[in-house]
Amino acid sequence: MIAPSILSADFARLADEAAAVASADWLHVDVMDAHFVPNLTIGLPVVKSLRKATDLPLDCHLMIDDPDRWAIAYAEAGAYNVTVHVEAANDPVQLAKNLRAAGAKAGLSLKPGTPLEPCVEVLKHYDTLLVMSVEPGFGGQSFMAEVLDKVRAARRLVDTGHLKLVIEIDGGINADTIEQAAEAGVDCFVAGSAVYDAADPGAALERLREQATRAR
Amino acid sequence: MIAPSILSADFARLADEAAAVASADWLHVDVMDAHFVPNLTIGLPVVKSLRKATDLPLDCHLMIDDPDRWAIAYAEAGAYNVTVHVEAANDPVQLAKNLRAAGAKAGLSLKPGTPLEPCVEVLKHYDTLLVMSVEPGFGGQSFMAEVLDKVRAARRLVDTGHLKLVIEIDGGINADTIEQAAEAGVDCFVAGSAVYDAADPGAALERLREQATRAR
Repeated sequence: MIAPSILSADFARLADEAAAVASADWLHVDVMDAHFVPNLTIGLPVVKSLRKATDLPLDCHLMIDDPDRWAIAYAEAGAYNVTVHVEAANDPVQLAKNLRAAGAKAGLSLKPGTPLEPCVEVLKHYDTLLVMSVEPGFGGQSFMAEVLDKVRAARRLVDTGHLKLVIEIDGGINADTIEQAAEAGVDCFVAGSAVYDAADPGAALERLREQATRAR
Repeated sequence: MIAPSILSADFARLADEAAAVASADWLHVDVMDAHFVPNLTIGLPVVKSLRKATDLPLDCHLMIDDPDRWAIAYAEAGAYNVTVHVEAANDPVQLAKNLRAAGAKAGLSLKPGTPLEPCVEVLKHYDTLLVMSVEPGFGGQSFMAEVLDKVRAARRLVDTGHLKLVIEIDGGINADTIEQAAEAGVDCFVAGSAVYDAADPGAALERLREQATRAR
Protein backbone atom coordinates (compact mmCIF):
# COMPACT_ATOMS: atom_id res chain seq x y z
CA MET A 1 0.00 0.00 0.00
CA ILE A 2 1.16 3.53 -0.79
CA ALA A 3 0.02 6.54 1.27
CA PRO A 4 1.11 9.83 -0.32
CA SER A 5 1.69 12.53 2.29
CA ILE A 6 0.11 15.91 1.67
CA LEU A 7 2.93 17.46 3.72
CA SER A 8 4.69 17.85 0.35
CA ALA A 9 1.56 18.95 -1.55
CA ASP A 10 0.23 22.43 -2.39
CA PHE A 11 -1.86 23.30 0.66
CA ALA A 12 -3.82 25.90 -1.30
CA ARG A 13 -5.16 23.17 -3.63
CA LEU A 14 -5.55 20.07 -1.48
CA ALA A 15 -8.62 18.81 -3.33
CA ASP A 16 -6.67 18.80 -6.61
CA GLU A 17 -3.63 17.28 -4.91
CA ALA A 18 -5.76 14.43 -3.56
CA ALA A 19 -7.24 13.88 -7.03
CA ALA A 20 -3.71 13.69 -8.47
CA VAL A 21 -3.06 10.53 -6.40
CA ALA A 22 -6.48 8.93 -6.88
CA SER A 23 -4.95 5.44 -7.14
CA ALA A 24 -3.36 5.72 -3.68
CA ASP A 25 -4.44 3.34 -0.94
CA TRP A 26 -4.55 5.96 1.81
CA LEU A 27 -3.94 9.72 1.88
CA HIS A 28 -1.50 10.51 4.69
CA VAL A 29 -2.28 13.68 6.66
CA ASP A 30 0.48 15.07 8.89
CA VAL A 31 -1.03 16.94 11.84
CA MET A 32 1.62 18.90 13.80
CA ASP A 33 1.07 21.32 16.69
CA ALA A 34 4.44 23.11 17.08
CA HIS A 35 4.80 21.49 20.50
CA PHE A 36 5.25 17.73 20.07
CA VAL A 37 7.27 18.55 16.95
CA PRO A 38 8.80 21.90 15.89
CA ASN A 39 6.35 22.59 13.05
CA LEU A 40 2.69 23.59 12.76
CA THR A 41 0.88 22.14 9.74
CA ILE A 42 -2.84 21.46 9.63
CA GLY A 43 -5.54 20.39 12.05
CA LEU A 44 -9.14 19.33 12.38
CA PRO A 45 -10.85 21.97 10.18
CA VAL A 46 -8.60 20.97 7.28
CA VAL A 47 -9.32 17.26 7.80
CA LYS A 48 -13.05 18.06 7.76
CA SER A 49 -12.67 19.93 4.46
CA LEU A 50 -10.51 17.12 3.02
CA ARG A 51 -13.06 14.48 4.01
CA LYS A 52 -15.60 16.21 1.73
CA ALA A 53 -13.08 16.76 -1.07
CA THR A 54 -11.83 13.19 -1.64
CA ASP A 55 -12.98 9.58 -1.35
CA LEU A 56 -9.49 8.39 -0.37
CA PRO A 57 -9.22 6.91 3.14
CA LEU A 58 -7.58 9.55 5.34
CA ASP A 59 -4.61 8.31 7.36
CA CYS A 60 -4.20 10.99 10.04
CA HIS A 61 -0.84 11.04 11.78
CA LEU A 62 -1.14 13.14 14.93
CA MET A 63 2.24 14.60 15.88
CA ILE A 64 0.67 16.49 18.77
CA ASP A 65 0.71 16.72 22.52
CA ASP A 66 -2.15 15.16 24.48
CA PRO A 67 -3.61 12.90 21.77
CA ASP A 68 -5.84 11.41 24.49
CA ARG A 69 -7.77 14.69 24.32
CA TRP A 70 -7.73 15.42 20.60
CA ALA A 71 -7.59 12.17 18.61
CA ILE A 72 -11.27 11.19 18.84
CA ALA A 73 -12.37 14.32 16.97
CA TYR A 74 -10.33 13.16 13.96
CA ALA A 75 -12.09 9.79 14.03
CA GLU A 76 -15.44 11.54 14.28
CA ALA A 77 -14.44 13.78 11.35
CA GLY A 78 -14.22 10.64 9.22
CA ALA A 79 -10.52 9.69 9.30
CA TYR A 80 -10.05 6.03 8.28
CA ASN A 81 -7.01 5.54 10.52
CA VAL A 82 -5.88 7.80 13.38
CA THR A 83 -2.28 7.35 14.49
CA VAL A 84 -1.01 8.75 17.79
CA HIS A 85 2.51 8.80 19.18
CA VAL A 86 3.31 6.45 22.04
CA GLU A 87 5.68 9.15 23.38
CA ALA A 88 2.75 11.58 23.70
CA ALA A 89 -0.16 9.38 24.79
CA ASN A 90 -1.07 9.11 28.46
CA ASP A 91 -3.20 5.96 28.18
CA PRO A 92 -2.61 4.46 24.74
CA VAL A 93 -4.75 1.36 25.41
CA GLN A 94 -7.82 3.38 26.34
CA LEU A 95 -7.11 5.72 23.44
CA ALA A 96 -7.12 2.80 20.96
CA LYS A 97 -10.44 1.61 22.39
CA ASN A 98 -11.92 5.08 22.02
CA LEU A 99 -10.69 5.40 18.43
CA ARG A 100 -12.19 2.04 17.45
CA ALA A 101 -15.45 2.91 19.23
CA ALA A 102 -15.54 6.11 17.16
CA GLY A 103 -15.32 4.03 13.99
CA ALA A 104 -11.66 4.49 13.05
CA LYS A 105 -8.69 2.19 12.88
CA ALA A 106 -6.22 2.90 15.70
CA GLY A 107 -2.58 3.54 14.86
CA LEU A 108 0.45 3.82 17.11
CA SER A 109 3.63 5.58 15.97
CA LEU A 110 7.17 5.27 17.32
CA LYS A 111 9.88 7.89 16.81
CA PRO A 112 13.20 6.53 15.48
CA GLY A 113 14.68 6.35 18.98
CA THR A 114 11.69 4.61 20.62
CA PRO A 115 12.14 0.84 21.02
CA LEU A 116 9.44 -1.65 20.02
CA GLU A 117 9.66 -4.11 22.90
CA PRO A 118 8.00 -2.00 25.64
CA CYS A 119 5.10 -1.29 23.22
CA VAL A 120 4.21 -4.86 22.26
CA GLU A 121 1.44 -5.34 24.84
CA VAL A 122 -0.10 -1.97 23.95
CA LEU A 123 0.08 -2.82 20.24
CA LYS A 124 -2.34 -5.72 20.77
CA HIS A 125 -5.02 -3.02 20.90
CA TYR A 126 -3.92 -1.31 17.67
CA ASP A 127 -4.57 -1.86 13.95
CA THR A 128 -1.52 -0.08 12.52
CA LEU A 129 2.06 0.50 13.63
CA LEU A 130 3.74 3.55 12.09
CA VAL A 131 7.53 3.28 12.27
CA MET A 132 9.14 6.70 11.84
CA SER A 133 12.24 6.55 9.65
CA VAL A 134 13.06 10.25 10.20
CA GLU A 135 12.57 12.51 13.22
CA PRO A 136 8.99 13.72 12.82
CA GLY A 137 8.44 17.39 11.97
CA PHE A 138 9.41 18.04 8.37
CA GLY A 139 9.23 16.53 4.91
CA GLY A 140 12.22 15.90 2.67
CA GLN A 141 14.53 14.29 5.26
CA SER A 142 16.88 11.35 4.67
CA PHE A 143 15.85 7.78 5.44
CA MET A 144 17.26 6.23 8.68
CA ALA A 145 17.96 2.62 7.70
CA GLU A 146 18.63 1.64 11.32
CA VAL A 147 14.87 1.59 12.02
CA LEU A 148 14.52 -1.44 9.74
CA ASP A 149 15.50 -3.69 12.66
CA LYS A 150 12.34 -2.44 14.36
CA VAL A 151 10.33 -3.23 11.24
CA ARG A 152 11.78 -6.76 11.08
CA ALA A 153 10.95 -7.37 14.76
CA ALA A 154 7.37 -6.17 14.21
CA ARG A 155 7.08 -8.32 11.07
CA ARG A 156 8.08 -11.41 13.06
CA LEU A 157 5.47 -10.64 15.74
CA VAL A 158 2.81 -10.31 13.05
CA ASP A 159 3.88 -13.38 11.08
CA THR A 160 3.90 -15.52 14.24
CA GLY A 161 0.43 -14.33 15.20
CA HIS A 162 1.46 -12.36 18.29
CA LEU A 163 0.25 -9.07 16.77
CA LYS A 164 -2.25 -8.24 14.04
CA LEU A 165 -1.03 -5.00 12.50
CA VAL A 166 -0.52 -3.13 9.28
CA ILE A 167 3.15 -2.10 9.43
CA GLU A 168 3.59 1.39 8.00
CA ILE A 169 6.77 3.43 7.52
CA ASP A 170 7.12 7.21 7.22
CA GLY A 171 10.16 9.30 6.36
CA GLY A 172 12.58 9.41 3.45
CA ILE A 173 10.73 6.76 1.42
CA ASN A 174 11.60 7.07 -2.28
CA ALA A 175 12.86 5.00 -5.20
CA ASP A 176 16.21 4.50 -3.44
CA THR A 177 14.83 3.32 -0.09
CA ILE A 178 11.47 1.63 -0.65
CA GLU A 179 12.90 -1.75 -1.62
CA GLN A 180 14.89 -2.24 1.57
CA ALA A 181 11.83 -1.19 3.59
CA ALA A 182 9.67 -3.67 1.66
CA GLU A 183 12.20 -6.46 2.20
CA ALA A 184 12.15 -5.73 5.94
CA GLY A 185 8.39 -6.30 5.97
CA VAL A 186 6.61 -2.97 5.60
CA ASP A 187 2.99 -3.16 4.37
CA CYS A 188 2.24 0.54 3.81
CA PHE A 189 4.68 3.21 2.62
CA VAL A 190 4.18 6.91 3.30
CA ALA A 191 5.81 9.00 0.58
CA GLY A 192 5.75 12.78 0.46
CA SER A 193 8.27 14.53 -1.75
CA ALA A 194 8.89 11.31 -3.76
CA VAL A 195 5.29 11.59 -4.97
CA TYR A 196 4.44 15.29 -4.90
CA ASP A 197 7.74 16.67 -6.17
CA ALA A 198 7.41 14.44 -9.27
CA ALA A 199 6.09 15.93 -12.50
CA ASP A 200 3.34 13.28 -12.46
CA PRO A 201 2.47 12.32 -8.85
CA GLY A 202 0.16 9.52 -9.96
CA ALA A 203 2.87 7.88 -12.07
CA ALA A 204 5.47 8.29 -9.29
CA LEU A 205 3.11 6.53 -6.89
CA GLU A 206 2.63 3.62 -9.32
CA ARG A 207 6.39 3.23 -9.78
CA LEU A 208 6.87 3.10 -5.98
CA ARG A 209 4.13 0.49 -5.69
CA GLU A 210 5.74 -1.70 -8.36
CA GLN A 211 9.15 -1.45 -6.69
CA ALA A 212 7.71 -2.38 -3.29
CA THR A 213 5.64 -5.26 -4.66
CA ARG A 214 8.67 -6.71 -6.45
CA ALA A 215 10.92 -6.38 -3.40
CA ARG A 216 8.37 -7.79 -0.98
CA MET B 1 -11.03 47.64 5.12
CA ILE B 2 -12.48 44.14 5.09
CA ALA B 3 -10.36 41.06 5.82
CA PRO B 4 -12.25 37.82 5.13
CA SER B 5 -11.11 34.98 7.40
CA ILE B 6 -10.35 31.64 5.77
CA LEU B 7 -11.26 29.96 9.07
CA SER B 8 -14.76 29.72 7.56
CA ALA B 9 -13.56 28.75 4.07
CA ASP B 10 -13.12 25.34 2.42
CA PHE B 11 -9.58 24.35 3.42
CA ALA B 12 -9.34 21.87 0.55
CA ARG B 13 -9.73 24.71 -1.99
CA LEU B 14 -8.01 27.74 -0.41
CA ALA B 15 -6.75 29.13 -3.72
CA ASP B 16 -10.35 29.25 -5.04
CA GLU B 17 -11.61 30.64 -1.73
CA ALA B 18 -9.06 33.46 -1.91
CA ALA B 19 -10.08 34.18 -5.51
CA ALA B 20 -13.72 34.39 -4.39
CA VAL B 21 -12.86 37.44 -2.24
CA ALA B 22 -10.48 39.11 -4.68
CA SER B 23 -11.76 42.59 -3.77
CA ALA B 24 -10.82 42.12 -0.10
CA ASP B 25 -8.21 44.40 1.45
CA TRP B 26 -6.44 41.65 3.39
CA LEU B 27 -6.94 37.89 3.65
CA HIS B 28 -7.09 36.94 7.33
CA VAL B 29 -5.29 33.70 8.23
CA ASP B 30 -6.06 32.15 11.63
CA VAL B 31 -3.07 30.19 12.89
CA MET B 32 -3.92 28.09 15.99
CA ASP B 33 -1.71 25.56 17.78
CA ALA B 34 -4.12 23.70 20.13
CA HIS B 35 -2.20 25.16 23.08
CA PHE B 36 -2.76 28.93 23.21
CA VAL B 37 -6.32 28.23 22.01
CA PRO B 38 -8.22 24.91 22.02
CA ASN B 39 -8.12 24.37 18.24
CA LEU B 40 -5.49 23.44 15.65
CA THR B 41 -5.96 25.04 12.24
CA ILE B 42 -3.11 25.78 9.85
CA GLY B 43 0.50 26.80 10.06
CA LEU B 44 3.52 27.89 8.11
CA PRO B 45 3.43 25.38 5.19
CA VAL B 46 -0.13 26.49 4.41
CA VAL B 47 0.84 30.17 4.53
CA LYS B 48 3.68 29.43 2.10
CA SER B 49 1.26 27.72 -0.30
CA LEU B 50 -1.28 30.55 0.08
CA ARG B 51 1.38 33.17 -0.65
CA LYS B 52 1.88 31.59 -4.10
CA ALA B 53 -1.86 31.14 -4.70
CA THR B 54 -3.10 34.70 -4.20
CA ASP B 55 -1.96 38.31 -4.53
CA LEU B 56 -4.03 39.41 -1.51
CA PRO B 57 -2.00 40.72 1.44
CA LEU B 58 -1.94 37.95 4.07
CA ASP B 59 -2.94 39.05 7.55
CA CYS B 60 -1.62 36.26 9.77
CA HIS B 61 -3.14 36.09 13.22
CA LEU B 62 -0.97 33.84 15.39
CA MET B 63 -3.02 32.30 18.19
CA ILE B 64 -0.02 30.29 19.36
CA ASP B 65 2.32 29.89 22.30
CA ASP B 66 5.80 31.39 22.07
CA PRO B 67 5.27 33.80 19.16
CA ASP B 68 8.74 35.20 19.93
CA ARG B 69 10.08 31.95 18.44
CA TRP B 70 7.67 31.39 15.54
CA ALA B 71 6.38 34.74 14.22
CA ILE B 72 9.39 35.75 12.13
CA ALA B 73 9.00 32.73 9.85
CA TYR B 74 5.55 34.00 8.85
CA ALA B 75 7.02 37.38 7.95
CA GLU B 76 9.76 35.66 5.94
CA ALA B 77 7.09 33.56 4.20
CA GLY B 78 5.63 36.78 2.83
CA ALA B 79 2.85 37.69 5.27
CA TYR B 80 1.90 41.35 4.94
CA ASN B 81 0.97 41.71 8.60
CA VAL B 82 1.85 39.31 11.44
CA THR B 83 -0.25 39.65 14.58
CA VAL B 84 0.82 38.09 17.87
CA HIS B 85 -1.03 37.92 21.17
CA VAL B 86 0.18 40.13 24.00
CA GLU B 87 -0.85 37.35 26.41
CA ALA B 88 1.57 34.94 24.70
CA ALA B 89 4.56 37.14 23.81
CA ASN B 90 7.58 37.26 26.11
CA ASP B 91 9.11 40.43 24.70
CA PRO B 92 6.52 42.10 22.46
CA VAL B 93 8.66 45.19 21.77
CA GLN B 94 11.60 43.15 20.47
CA LEU B 95 9.15 40.94 18.56
CA ALA B 96 7.68 43.99 16.77
CA LYS B 97 11.16 45.16 15.84
CA ASN B 98 12.01 41.71 14.47
CA LEU B 99 8.80 41.55 12.44
CA ARG B 100 9.43 44.95 10.89
CA ALA B 101 13.05 44.05 10.17
CA ALA B 102 11.77 40.96 8.37
CA GLY B 103 9.63 43.17 6.14
CA ALA B 104 6.18 42.71 7.69
CA LYS B 105 3.81 44.97 9.54
CA ALA B 106 3.66 44.10 13.24
CA GLY B 107 0.29 43.46 14.86
CA LEU B 108 -0.66 43.02 18.50
CA SER B 109 -3.87 41.27 19.53
CA LEU B 110 -5.77 41.49 22.82
CA LYS B 111 -8.24 38.85 24.01
CA PRO B 112 -11.63 40.23 25.12
CA GLY B 113 -10.59 40.25 28.79
CA THR B 114 -7.20 41.92 28.25
CA PRO B 115 -7.22 45.67 29.02
CA LEU B 116 -5.71 48.23 26.64
CA GLU B 117 -4.02 50.56 29.14
CA PRO B 118 -1.03 48.36 30.10
CA CYS B 119 -0.32 47.79 26.39
CA VAL B 120 -0.17 51.42 25.25
CA GLU B 121 3.62 51.81 25.52
CA VAL B 122 4.17 48.52 23.71
CA LEU B 123 1.72 49.52 20.98
CA LYS B 124 4.00 52.43 20.00
CA HIS B 125 6.11 49.76 18.28
CA TYR B 126 3.19 48.20 16.39
CA ASP B 127 1.35 48.91 13.14
CA THR B 128 -1.94 47.17 13.86
CA LEU B 129 -4.03 46.48 16.95
CA LEU B 130 -6.37 43.49 16.68
CA VAL B 131 -9.18 43.71 19.22
CA MET B 132 -10.77 40.29 19.74
CA SER B 133 -14.56 40.48 20.00
CA VAL B 134 -14.91 36.76 20.79
CA GLU B 135 -12.68 34.37 22.73
CA PRO B 136 -10.17 33.23 20.10
CA GLY B 137 -10.34 29.61 18.94
CA PHE B 138 -13.38 29.10 16.75
CA GLY B 139 -15.42 30.75 14.01
CA GLY B 140 -19.14 31.45 14.20
CA GLN B 141 -19.26 32.93 17.72
CA SER B 142 -21.40 35.87 18.88
CA PHE B 143 -20.04 39.41 18.99
CA MET B 144 -19.08 40.78 22.43
CA ALA B 145 -20.16 44.43 22.27
CA GLU B 146 -18.37 45.23 25.54
CA VAL B 147 -15.02 45.30 23.72
CA LEU B 148 -16.13 48.44 21.85
CA ASP B 149 -15.03 50.53 24.84
CA LYS B 150 -11.51 49.25 24.12
CA VAL B 151 -11.89 50.22 20.46
CA ARG B 152 -13.05 53.74 21.42
CA ALA B 153 -10.10 54.18 23.76
CA ALA B 154 -7.67 53.06 21.05
CA ARG B 155 -9.39 55.33 18.52
CA ARG B 156 -8.84 58.34 20.83
CA LEU B 157 -5.17 57.47 21.23
CA VAL B 158 -4.78 57.29 17.45
CA ASP B 159 -6.81 60.44 16.73
CA THR B 160 -4.80 62.42 19.28
CA GLY B 161 -1.50 61.23 17.81
CA HIS B 162 -0.39 59.11 20.77
CA LEU B 163 -0.48 55.94 18.67
CA LYS B 164 -0.28 55.26 14.95
CA LEU B 165 -2.24 52.06 14.38
CA VAL B 166 -4.70 50.34 12.12
CA ILE B 167 -7.47 49.25 14.49
CA GLU B 168 -8.79 45.84 13.53
CA ILE B 169 -11.58 43.77 15.06
CA ASP B 170 -12.14 40.01 14.89
CA GLY B 171 -15.08 37.90 16.04
CA GLY B 172 -18.81 37.92 15.31
CA ILE B 173 -18.58 40.66 12.67
CA ASN B 174 -21.59 40.51 10.33
CA ALA B 175 -24.38 42.72 8.95
CA ASP B 176 -25.86 43.09 12.45
CA THR B 177 -22.67 44.12 14.24
CA ILE B 178 -20.37 45.87 11.75
CA GLU B 179 -22.03 49.29 12.05
CA GLN B 180 -21.55 49.61 15.81
CA ALA B 181 -17.92 48.51 15.39
CA ALA B 182 -17.40 51.10 12.65
CA GLU B 183 -18.98 53.83 14.78
CA ALA B 184 -16.60 52.93 17.63
CA GLY B 185 -13.65 53.55 15.31
CA VAL B 186 -12.57 50.26 13.74
CA ASP B 187 -10.50 50.54 10.52
CA CYS B 188 -10.36 46.89 9.45
CA PHE B 189 -13.04 44.25 9.95
CA VAL B 190 -12.30 40.53 10.00
CA ALA B 191 -15.33 38.55 8.83
CA GLY B 192 -15.43 34.77 8.54
CA SER B 193 -18.82 33.10 8.34
CA ALA B 194 -20.50 36.39 7.29
CA VAL B 195 -18.47 36.19 4.09
CA TYR B 196 -17.83 32.51 3.45
CA ASP B 197 -21.23 31.15 4.50
CA ALA B 198 -22.87 33.53 1.99
CA ALA B 199 -23.92 32.20 -1.42
CA ASP B 200 -21.72 34.90 -3.00
CA PRO B 201 -18.74 35.68 -0.72
CA GLY B 202 -17.61 38.58 -2.92
CA ALA B 203 -21.01 40.26 -2.76
CA ALA B 204 -21.27 39.70 1.00
CA LEU B 205 -17.91 41.39 1.44
CA GLU B 206 -19.01 44.41 -0.62
CA ARG B 207 -22.20 44.77 1.43
CA LEU B 208 -20.20 44.72 4.67
CA ARG B 209 -17.81 47.35 3.29
CA GLU B 210 -20.73 49.64 2.33
CA GLN B 211 -22.31 49.28 5.76
CA ALA B 212 -19.04 50.06 7.53
CA THR B 213 -18.24 53.03 5.29
CA ARG B 214 -21.71 54.52 5.89
CA ALA B 215 -21.52 54.04 9.66
CA ARG B 216 -17.99 55.40 9.97
